[in-house]
This record gives sequence, C-alpha cells and structure tokens, in this order.
Amino acid sequence: MKHMPHVSLITVIEIIAILVGAFSGFIEARRKRMDVVGVFTVAFIAAFGGGTLRDILLDRRPLFWVQHQEYAILIFILALIANPLIRTLRQIVSERLIVIADAVGLGLFAVAGVSLALTANMPLFIASMMGVITGIFGGVLRDIVCNEVPMVFRDGKPYAICAFIGCWLYILLQRTNVSDDFALWLSATVITLLRLLTWKFDMRVGRP
Amino acid sequence: MKHMPHVSLITVIEIIAILVGAFSGFIEARRKRMDVVGVFTVAFIAAFGGGTLRDILLDRRPLFWVQHQEYAILIFILALIANPLIRTLRQIVSERLIVIADAVGLGLFAVAGVSLALTANMPLFIASMMGVITGIFGGVLRDIVCNEVPMVFRDGKPYAICAFIGCWLYILLQRTNVSDDFALWLSATVITLLRLLTWKFDMRVGRP
Amino acid sequence: MKHMPHVSLITVIEIIAILVGAFSGFIEARRKRMDVVGVFTVAFIAAFGGGTLRDILLDRRPLFWVQHQEYAILIFILALIANPLIRTLRQIVSERLIVIADAVGLGLFAVAGVSLALTANMPLFIASMMGVITGIFGGVLRDIVCNEVPMVFRDGKPYAICAFIGCWLYILLQRTNVSDDFALWLSATVITLLRLLTWKFDMRVGRP
Repeated sequence: MKHMPHVSLITVIEIIAILVGAFSGFIEARRKRMDVVGVFTVAFIAAFGGGTLRDILLDRRPLFWVQHQEYAILIFILALIANPLIRTLRQIVSERLIVIADAVGLGLFAVAGVSLALTANMPLFIASMMGVITGIFGGVLRDIVCNEVPMVFRDGKPYAICAFIGCWLYILLQRTNVSDDFALWLSATVITLLRLLTWKFDMRVGRP
Repeated sequence: MKHMPHVSLITVIEIIAILVGAFSGFIEARRKRMDVVGVFTVAFIAAFGGGTLRDILLDRRPLFWVQHQEYAILIFILALIANPLIRTLRQIVSERLIVIADAVGLGLFAVAGVSLALTANMPLFIASMMGVITGIFGGVLRDIVCNEVPMVFRDGKPYAICAFIGCWLYILLQRTNVSDDFALWLSATVITLLRLLTWKFDMRVGRP
Repeated sequence: MKHMPHVSLITVIEIIAILVGAFSGFIEARRKRMDVVGVFTVAFIAAFGGGTLRDILLDRRPLFWVQHQEYAILIFILALIANPLIRTLRQIVSERLIVIADAVGLGLFAVAGVSLALTANMPLFIASMMGVITGIFGGVLRDIVCNEVPMVFRDGKPYAICAFIGCWLYILLQRTNVSDDFALWLSATVITLLRLLTWKFDMRVGRP
C-alpha cells in the first residue's frame, strides 16, 4: 500500500461520483418505463451532463468523457443489467450510503468546475456559477429529458447552495498562501459536509 | 446632461431588456413553485439563453454574460427578493409598460443577433434566423426548463415574425449607403413598433 | 443521364433524409397545435438537431445547415404550407414509403456521424456514440421541445440499436482494405435494412 500512487484515490472517488450520477439516471429512466436506449442515455446525461455543459460554455475540448471512453463503456454495460443491478443494490446498499456518495460527488464536481473556470480566466462570480453548473446540471438535464421540472429547482433542499458556498471558499483560498491541492480538497470536503448536515437536519430554503 | 456619453443610453436599454427577460423567468418559476435556485436559474436562462445559444452555434466566445458578470450578480440579488419584488412591480407597473419593455428587448436582441451573424459571415437566411433565435430562445429555453411547450411556438402571436421582418430590414439596409448605426437603430425600432402594433390590435398568425 | 455526376445521388438522398426529419417535426408540431413559428422550428430541429449536437460536441464549424442555407429555406417554405402538404402526402404516400425513407435517413446520418467522429480522432466507442447521436437526436430534441418523453427512449423499437450496429460495422471495415466509400455505403445500407427488418417483424427490445 505504501507505494500506491495518490492518483488512485482520486480515480476511485471519480468513478464513484460518476456511478452515483448514472444510477440516478437508471432509476429515473426506469420510472419513466424507458427501454435500454433511454436508460443508457439518461444515465449518461445524468453522469456527464453538468461537466459537458460547462465545457461547452467555456469552449473546452476534448470533453471529459471523450478522453475517458472507459466511463462511457462502463455505463453502457451497467445499462444492460440496470434492472437486476438496481434491485441488488437496493438490498445491499442503504439510502444513507447513496446520500453520502452523492454528496461526495457534488463536492468533487463543483470544485473541479470552479477550478477549471478560474484557469480559463472567468470572472469570480461566473466561475462560482460554473462550479454549481458542473455539480447540478447533470440532474437538471436528466429531468428535462425525462419530461420533469428539474428536482433541484423545486425541492427546496439546499443542494446548489452547498456547492455555491464551497465554490466561494475555494475562490477565497486561492487568494491565500495555501496550496491549490489543499484548497481543492478542503472546499470539496466542506461541500460534502454541508450537504450531509443539511440532509441530516432536513433543512430547506424557502421560495423567494 | 450635455456630456453624457451616448453609450449610457444603450447600457440603460440593455439592462431594461435583460431585466424584462429575467422577470419573465421569475414569474414562470414561481408559477411552478420553484425554490430560489430554480428562480435564479430560470430567470438567468430567460435573460441570456437566446444570446448564449446563438454564440454556441456561431462558436463565439467569451459569452456576453461571462464578460458582464454584473448582470449575473444583479439577477442573483433580484432572485433573492423575487417575491416582494414581483408584488411591488405589479402594483406600480402597468401591463402596458411590461409589453413595451419586452418589445424594446425583442428589437435590441434580434438586431444584435443578425448583426453579429453577418459579421461572422453567415449566409443571409441563416443570419436572419440567428437574429430571431437571439430574440426568442431565452423564452423557449425558459419554457422547456419549466416543462411547458414553448409559448412562442403556440400562442399565434407574431412575436418571432416581427423579429424576422426587422432582421431582413437590417440585412437590406446593409446593402444601401446608410450607416450601420442607423440601420441597427431603425431595424430595432421597426421590430418594437411592429410588436406593439400587433399587440394593440391583437393580431394572430394561423396554424399552417 | 450518362454524364450525371454521382454527387447528385447523394444530394437527392440527403434531401430526402432531411425532408423526412422535417416532416416528423411538422406532424409532431401540429399535434401540439403549434403556430407556424413552432412548426418551422420543430421541423428544423428534427431535421438538423442530431448533426448540430454532434458538431457542438466535436467543436466542428461551420454547422451543416449554415453552409447549406438552401435546406433551411426549403423547410421554411414547406412550413408555410405544412397543413395542405401533410394532407396531400397522406393521400399519395403510403406509411411503408415513409418508414423506408426514414430508415434510409437513419443509415446516412449515423454513418456520416461515425465517419466525422473518426476523422476528428475520437476513440472508437465515442465515435460509435456520435454516429447514433447524429441518427437519433433530431427526434430526441424534437420531442423535448414538444414536451414529450423522447419516443426513441421508450417505444422499445431497436432504432438506435440498428444505428449502433452499423456504426461498429463501419469502424471494423475501416480496419480492412476496403475503400472508405464502400465502407460508408455498406454500413448505411446495413442500418437501413436492419431497421426495415425489425420494423417488418415488429421486433422490440425489452426494458433492462
């Protein structure tokens, strides 16, 4: 274990975050009684839609999933066995674990988004928006394709707001002497913890 | 007043046009009982969606709202007070004023779109389409996110058609000796007046 | 006839494929009781949406319809007479003919998509996805704008799957000594025949 490169941890977390996004697509697509083409497409959009929209807005290429076709192939294979897979997972994985994995994914995606936007010289507020877009638009596009008003816009759960706060923490940390790595991990962790806290206490934001 | 630069007038009109778009998003998002995240996002899409789609199709960067983050911040602040704001506005602003501001915005956005498309060497018909897209797709994307058939595609009001006519007027004026500034203002004014006339007389186009 | 250049055949097939896409938009837009603006826009999206999404993902410009404004103008004119046009076509054209034309279009669009993606050095699985996207996302975007769950995701007909198989045939043929032209035509023909066979025998794929 001593010589295990630290990139492995990131890769493992990345895969988990992508799989959690994809599973939210599997579940939504099955609720809509879609066939295997729909199940794959909706899962793919849920997993990669946020980052793809960010990259189109920033005009970044190649897209993440173009460079990592192994993730697309993984979702493709899982889509073929989505039905037994979801049933099995529901028996062995608690809801708590799914919420935790989802919160970890939110933190990672949002911090990756704000960091890439700052690298592309976006103004600060726009950079924070890019972070939130990366974190939530997978779910937004998934719901639009499934012909639903996006959940994240109406359930009052402070999902986007946790991402927004963490993005600004990262922007502020960038102004200090701390290393970029530390800023990334701290901000992602804060987003994850905020999300878990607001879930634990079932906090809601009101309608404006 | 004498030394007030003429850019101020354009900026004021621009802000009004953007705010009218954003307010249409506030109203639609509240009708759908969205939370503050949804209200902000839908307002942002309604205000900037048309120009953003045009810029993606033309491959223009940076996007307008990326260069002017002050508009994004303004909509963000207004979204936080959208509820009292809309109630107050409904008391002090007549429907007539909203229609006028909206018609001004349609003219400005459409003419900006066709002008940018011609600068990018688009063929004429495509350039006129880009003008109409800039003018109407904010509302189209707003309605799609809100899970509605886009209003502008089904209410029979000649909204896009006014923009289309004005875009062709601009294209024709470009072939004459008049200055570009004059062509821009005249075309935008014609779109606004056409829209107000068709509203005044409640004109409809039929289904094909 | 002897000196007729072979590009004519491709152009004729291309026009037919685009028209079949546009007509699917006319029919869907009329079912939603849209006005002429909606009918044109939905038809345009149905005809060009798949290729446009592919080009945005690949960052290719100019877009196909920007270079060929004659197709946009053609759909525009047809949209103005969509109602009598559809009624007339229903009398003189059998459903069988529409299915055949649609299957030809699927083959052409999908093979064009995978070929362009390989030219842009996409990895193989991503290239096959780009082929399928080109073939089916016109209909997907048409259904989203019309506020429907996309038909191709839920009817269980192996539409996307035929395109997927043909795209992989093209990728495999690229590894052999056959000419690119032959690979393109054979793959497109196989997609069309597979689609017609699965239609003839009313084959369905199950839900995963």
